[in-house]
Amino acid sequence: MTKPLRLGIAGLGTVGAGVVSIIRKQAALLEARTGRSIEISAVSARSRSKDRGVNLSSYAWEDDPVALASRDDVDVFVELMGGEDGPAKAATEAALALGKDVITANKAMLAMHGQSMALAAEEKGCALKYEAAVAGGIPVIKALGEGLAGNEITRVMGVMNGSCNYILTRMEDAGLPYADVFAEADGLGYLEADPQLDVGGIDAAHKLALLSSLAFGTQVNFAGIELEGIERVSIEDIHAAADMGYKIKLLGVAQMTGRGLEQRMQPCLVPDTSPLAQLTGGTNMIVLEGDAVGQIVLRGAGAGAGPTASAVLSDVCDIARGYRGPAFGQPAATLTEATPALSQRPAAYYLRMALTDKPGALAKVAAVLGDSGVSINRMRQYGHEDSTAPVLIVTHKTTRADIDHALAAFANTAVVAGDPVALRIEEV
Amino acid sequence: MTKPLRLGIAGLGTVGAGVVSIIRKQAALLEARTGRSIEISAVSARSRSKDRGVNLSSYAWEDDPVALASRDDVDVFVELMGGEDGPAKAATEAALALGKDVITANKAMLAMHGQSMALAAEEKGCALKYEAAVAGGIPVIKALGEGLAGNEITRVMGVMNGSCNYILTRMEDAGLPYADVFAEADGLGYLEADPQLDVGGIDAAHKLALLSSLAFGTQVNFAGIELEGIERVSIEDIHAAADMGYKIKLLGVAQMTGRGLEQRMQPCLVPDTSPLAQLTGGTNMIVLEGDAVGQIVLRGAGAGAGPTASAVLSDVCDIARGYRGPAFGQPAATLTEATPALSQRPAAYYLRMALTDKPGALAKVAAVLGDSGVSINRMRQYGHEDSTAPVLIVTHKTTRADIDHALAAFANTAVVAGDPVALRIEEV
Repeated sequence: MTKPLRLGIAGLGTVGAGVVSIIRKQAALLEARTGRSIEISAVSARSRSKDRGVNLSSYAWEDDPVALASRDDVDVFVELMGGEDGPAKAATEAALALGKDVITANKAMLAMHGQSMALAAEEKGCALKYEAAVAGGIPVIKALGEGLAGNEITRVMGVMNGSCNYILTRMEDAGLPYADVFAEADGLGYLEADPQLDVGGIDAAHKLALLSSLAFGTQVNFAGIELEGIERVSIEDIHAAADMGYKIKLLGVAQMTGRGLEQRMQPCLVPDTSPLAQLTGGTNMIVLEGDAVGQIVLRGAGAGAGPTASAVLSDVCDIARGYRGPAFGQPAATLTEATPALSQRPAAYYLRMALTDKPGALAKVAAVLGDSGVSINRMRQYGHEDSTAPVLIVTHKTTRADIDHALAAFANTAVVAGDPVALRIEEV
Repeated sequence: MTKPLRLGIAGLGTVGAGVVSIIRKQAALLEARTGRSIEISAVSARSRSKDRGVNLSSYAWEDDPVALASRDDVDVFVELMGGEDGPAKAATEAALALGKDVITANKAMLAMHGQSMALAAEEKGCALKYEAAVAGGIPVIKALGEGLAGNEITRVMGVMNGSCNYILTRMEDAGLPYADVFAEADGLGYLEADPQLDVGGIDAAHKLALLSSLAFGTQVNFAGIELEGIERVSIEDIHAAADMGYKIKLLGVAQMTGRGLEQRMQPCLVPDTSPLAQLTGGTNMIVLEGDAVGQIVLRGAGAGAGPTASAVLSDVCDIARGYRGPAFGQPAATLTEATPALSQRPAAYYLRMALTDKPGALAKVAAVLGDSGVSINRMRQYGHEDSTAPVLIVTHKTTRADIDHALAAFANTAVVAGDPVALRIEEV
């Protein structure tokens, strides 16, 4: 009989309690599938007395997660506390230093310290696994790192923050402005304690940084991501984009280019008919493109106790089966330091602006675009609202630099009121 | 330095040539990712002289795949010949008997001999892997067997035969009858040499049998699948279903019920708005549902050299990394023999029939349905065509037995012309 695999679980929030619950409920199934009994030796959380809806009485308790990670009866340290530094980092490093396998759902910590942690794990021959850190229940780390291991990955893309997608689809469905839906989502408990992590795109960018590393064999580089949140997406843009056949999504895109690694997390337009556009509410979707496989699309719940715990259990089963490959698809020491490349790849852009009610206004806009090297694909001017008229433009493929040139020049025309909006249209 | 992993590849058709091509092109990448050099020792195919667009000169040649599988310089036997018996089976069994790892894309062989082959592999401690056998490039075997290993799987569902999906979507787009589109697809080389494997649903059912085993811990049971092909799907039904808000798909569904394992491969209606309905052309889609993860949807190319070779390479990389878990998610000796359960689970049904031009015809149909315990949700009667009028009915949830009772009773009413059509509406 093989020895049991003994877990120490730090963090007993929604996900931690979900993991405990699955391990209790599915003990026989997990043992049948992995050939080992999966046991919990000890747990740790901030408050010992809180009722979490699961029976913890048979597990040892540690107030200190570092002490938990260091226990002799813990083979695998399961870090579900969150936070990029502090106790999560200290305990993870303690576990790795002792040669214990680590499972974490902590995208922030790995986005910052993934490289050093992967090095530490590989030095000791132990696993650092994080299926639950990206896209909840979707087994995307496994799909990318193992399922597509025979591919040169050409692009990774996706909607990776359910709260932002909820806000954007709710704005569209209810016709409500951003501020109202933000307040509603916050009231419903859909946002992080610091909502900026969600709506600022930071949480999604943490996830993108991990996927990039795995996809392109580069060291995790969160700082290299061009990052823009959804705070400036207006209901007017959502309506106007719909009118032109697009949806607005907070889209992460990572692509290796001749100049380096391009990583973007920003509101983009995607065609109405694309799978990404059809994603509503808190669901996540990841698109993986490889030279051999073509395009693979994965969709599922991006958060929640069950889906995230399912991902943690995938890592637990892998370790029980002895699958301990390198965290980022190849030994951390061989990951390259990618030069961040700004997105100078040409793309079509969506422009929205308000024209003042002056003769020749539209001609001046068209002239500025022409002078900037931006060619117009489609244009619509709507009836005047008060003293301005909304104009929507979809450009042919152009560079961000040319768009920025045009935006700057609009300011000098005296016919464009306020700040024009420019959003990239992503080909999907 | 770890020893190279040496492959023997039997079968050099589209997929085999694709595998050779990736191994040559991506040698450095594969070695970086797996820590081992992936080498081809020998190959085998029917014709040695045929030009396959890849350079085979550095590999030994074997006319006999059994001899290939038995070579001392072959660690992994890669079976890409196809055919449920014959040389594929003989060579696979020879490889397993010698304790060699096996990778196969052969769904027909595994659907028939998967259990005995898995037992043979596990007895020798070697791998029997088949990612390429189901849904081409979509890493569904890995997602189900590893990514969702912490779940009790509740349902597996999907469109698994690209040729059938091509035919059905082409019928709808072009408004052409089945026979015309079948001939067109056959002319384009989209169908197997024996087209019945595709349009009869057999190929898709082979795949479903493998997914069921992996999902439910049961022995592969192809014979237990309720099987109906797409030959009887008419353009009239496609139009009528669209009119009621549905698409017709050749849908595989596997579900464990109180009475046993329900496995169906048959044309079904799915709501227009579901991801399955939006699948066009040769693309595949698999829907996996688990008690913890909820619903995961995977989409990608179901066939072709690149996608299928990508799946084979996933297995190669797994073996190179030492990931050799049991073929069907748990040791073959522990798989249960599931009782096949006929689909008596209630479902809504779509009915289409032609009513003769007689007073009270519709009343008789309604009476028959009522007497059979079938309750009507929606009904449409269209204007008369010649002497009959088309009638479409969507029922409330009912059993197949009640539907069959009604169908039999229609024959005695003398108001229903020809055979009525009854198709299940699948909840997705």
